[in-house]
Amino acid sequence: MKQIEVQQKVLKRHEDIAQQLRRRFDDAGLLAINIMGSPGAGKTALIESTAGKLSAGYRTLVLEGDLQTDNDAKRVRAAGLKALQINTNHTCHLDALMVARALDDNNINFTDLDLLIIENVGNLVCPAGFPLGEHCRIVLCSVPEGFDKPAKYPRMFYKADCVLLNKIDLLDVLDFDKDAFWNFVKQITPNSAHFEISCKTAHGTDAWLSWLGERKQNITRTKD
Amino acid sequence: MKQIEVQQKVLKRHEDIAQQLRRRFDDAGLLAINIMGSPGAGKTALIESTAGKLSAGYRTLVLEGDLQTDNDAKRVRAAGLKALQINTNHTCHLDALMVARALDDNNINFTDLDLLIIENVGNLVCPAGFPLGEHCRIVLCSVPEGFDKPAKYPRMFYKADCVLLNKIDLLDVLDFDKDAFWNFVKQITPNSAHFEISCKTAHGTDAWLSWLGERKQNITRTKD
Repeated sequence: MKQIEVQQKVLKRHEDIAQQLRRRFDDAGLLAINIMGSPGAGKTALIESTAGKLSAGYRTLVLEGDLQTDNDAKRVRAAGLKALQINTNHTCHLDALMVARALDDNNINFTDLDLLIIENVGNLVCPAGFPLGEHCRIVLCSVPEGFDKPAKYPRMFYKADCVLLNKIDLLDVLDFDKDAFWNFVKQITPNSAHFEISCKTAHGTDAWLSWLGERKQNITRTKD
Repeated sequence: MKQIEVQQKVLKRHEDIAQQLRRRFDDAGLLAINIMGSPGAGKTALIESTAGKLSAGYRTLVLEGDLQTDNDAKRVRAAGLKALQINTNHTCHLDALMVARALDDNNINFTDLDLLIIENVGNLVCPAGFPLGEHCRIVLCSVPEGFDKPAKYPRMFYKADCVLLNKIDLLDVLDFDKDAFWNFVKQITPNSAHFEISCKTAHGTDAWLSWLGERKQNITRTKD
């Protein structure tokens, strides 16, 4: 019982901080998205491949979550976007406190931004349990991972606002049952948006950016 | 402090159960291996593609760890090996208690086995922290995940006895810096064994099975 009580207190604390962050995002009219997926699904590649259009449309900041290295922040900066790296060391997910600290320690003024992209640690399990104050939860899967992942890791998909299937250019060389994949997704999260993309060929990324633009239009700054 | 104290107690309990399991494996002369890697890296495919040679050489049992579904146990059984499924629900890794319970609840007699293959939950972070009494820790990576994963997820590699790079047949169609991958691996775990494999073409799997056979020869039954 003691273990469960402590866990519940910790989770409650994270949820409170996430709610505070959400209020600050709303006050500033800033759209915050949390991109989650397995290692190597292509989370950073998605940001890189759309960086030009993102920076043309939005004052964007990217938060990169990784256990070690600042490789991803460097890649995103090289693509032309501002980025901060959070190293979690042994921790398997980002939490709201890490996000709040990264933003505040770097004196980020929320009203200077339109879009905050949080790239979570590559992990198809744990990040699902830690809200970051985001408006949208994006789950990025990729063809080489196999079509059965939504069925095997349903918790990641339950609260997804959008599911992206990346590396669609590999469908010809890999054995991937696309219909079965989307059927699993629709069973778990029937109301989420679904896009097939390739960060390599840019297939489908305009449709994804359109969807993101609509989400941005729904965010109204609640404070002057 | 309370949170850290509770976590340490929980980890200590898991380590004690893992040590008990290890003694039971040793008593029976049973080689136990723990296969870890990202979702879709090919852990089940490795077991499937070598099932014929495994069953010819060893009395083998496979424990399949997944959050949900018994898909993997079914696949392994269809390939001709005995398998038990452990569903962890929300838990992101197997722990020693889950393994002990699965074996004991199914009345597994350890002396009836030569080889226990434990396929962990697909996750490149959390399983590294939970010993299962195994003799060998196997980390399975795959080409589509990208060459930088050892640098970004070093904890998974620190204590690896063997690192396998799967889906080597995709090297021609993907941008993967193989030398950089192995350099990262050698920096983190210089003494582990390294094999390049393709579960699709069977490339390299005989070398992997040879290595496994040598590990098995080192296990001497400590009780009659």
